[in-house]
Amino acid sequence: MHRTKVKVAEDALDANTTIAAANRADFDRHGVSVVNFMSAPGAGKTTLLERVLGEVDARVGVLEGDVQGSADADRLSALHLPVVQLNTDSGFGGECHLDANMVRSALGDLPLEDLDLLVIENVGNLVCPAEFKVGEDARVMVSSVTEGEDKPFKYPLMFRACELVLINKIDLLEHLDFDLDRFLYHLDAVHPGVEHMLLSAKTGEGTEAFRDWLTGVAKTAPAPA
Amino acid sequence: MHRTKVKVAEDALDANTTIAAANRADFDRHGVSVVNFMSAPGAGKTTLLERVLGEVDARVGVLEGDVQGSADADRLSALHLPVVQLNTDSGFGGECHLDANMVRSALGDLPLEDLDLLVIENVGNLVCPAEFKVGEDARVMVSSVTEGEDKPFKYPLMFRACELVLINKIDLLEHLDFDLDRFLYHLDAVHPGVEHMLLSAKTGEGTEAFRDWLTGVAKTAPAPA
Repeated sequence: MHRTKVKVAEDALDANTTIAAANRADFDRHGVSVVNFMSAPGAGKTTLLERVLGEVDARVGVLEGDVQGSADADRLSALHLPVVQLNTDSGFGGECHLDANMVRSALGDLPLEDLDLLVIENVGNLVCPAEFKVGEDARVMVSSVTEGEDKPFKYPLMFRACELVLINKIDLLEHLDFDLDRFLYHLDAVHPGVEHMLLSAKTGEGTEAFRDWLTGVAKTAPAPA
Repeated sequence: MHRTKVKVAEDALDANTTIAAANRADFDRHGVSVVNFMSAPGAGKTTLLERVLGEVDARVGVLEGDVQGSADADRLSALHLPVVQLNTDSGFGGECHLDANMVRSALGDLPLEDLDLLVIENVGNLVCPAEFKVGEDARVMVSSVTEGEDKPFKYPLMFRACELVLINKIDLLEHLDFDLDRFLYHLDAVHPGVEHMLLSAKTGEGTEAFRDWLTGVAKTAPAPA
């Protein structure tokens, strides 16, 4: 029974890889760079995007992933960017993550030809989103200091699967027992040398560096075919 | 293709229901009440258990669920309670939740005959843990005020699937924009009338009520067969 279960999982991952490559080809054809943006629930992904996306020096769109509802998409639509809501509850069984097929189902609603950068905000979850590539160029994860120093070694795949770790809510550091050195020690143990930034989506402290990082990713996109 | 996928999911849930009933029968036979304890990563489940379990008026054991590692079990073992670590990474594909079969695989390591109350600390995740009963009497979820007011309507199944909602980290309220009335309004919308408690695992404020609630659950267990 275990053997059968493992086989099914491998098939699913293979299908995901195939569809992710198809997404990737579409992004390349339109000259769009794509960032897969991940975190635990409530780490501040949407607040951070509200803070920086309007100031990124590129034409930006957002694909908003949630189990249900459109609260985050509604918030981001105030930035007057193209925002598409993708719910895993409708036709995808209430999945706890986005996969390549779900993203593909939404591509027709996105004006790829008018974008340089697409940010895909994943479902809040530190486990499964890391297992499914969706055709992205880079993966960014947000870890809030209120979540504790132990998260890198409790959810190592997530911290290993990303190119950039944003350490958010640093405005609260003075009210917490959070030991930043210990967090960075754990982070370096699971993903040696990974880039990280300290910031506060609420106060804006440190967010310029992330804004500039996004602009840099947007500039790496190939010219549209 | 969608039809096939849905069918597989139903089969899996049925198997889970069957095994959960077998777990339930074992718990009843030993006179053990069981609480399934759930939250997002970093909401403070382990810190709260460290705070209260030593003072619950019952013989308590813990089944500690994590993707990998034994950090939380190591912390709780300082309470000199029976603690068993269950990793979803070993043989269970790194699952983002506990299910009845995983719990069953660990029952042999637990001294059920010496317990009145078993607390099962689930993997930190606001989606899938709510979909898998494990044979528990009650489900408790912890929502930290640092996660924001919108969590009940973004993850409604989790908030609907529990008998008690613990609103943790209230020591930080004065440093946050968190609107408690708005959170409670959302909570009542997705789960009308559900019991909730405000507390701080860090300072201990409000935790006596949860300790007494656990004692009450322990007392409801049937006499051992």
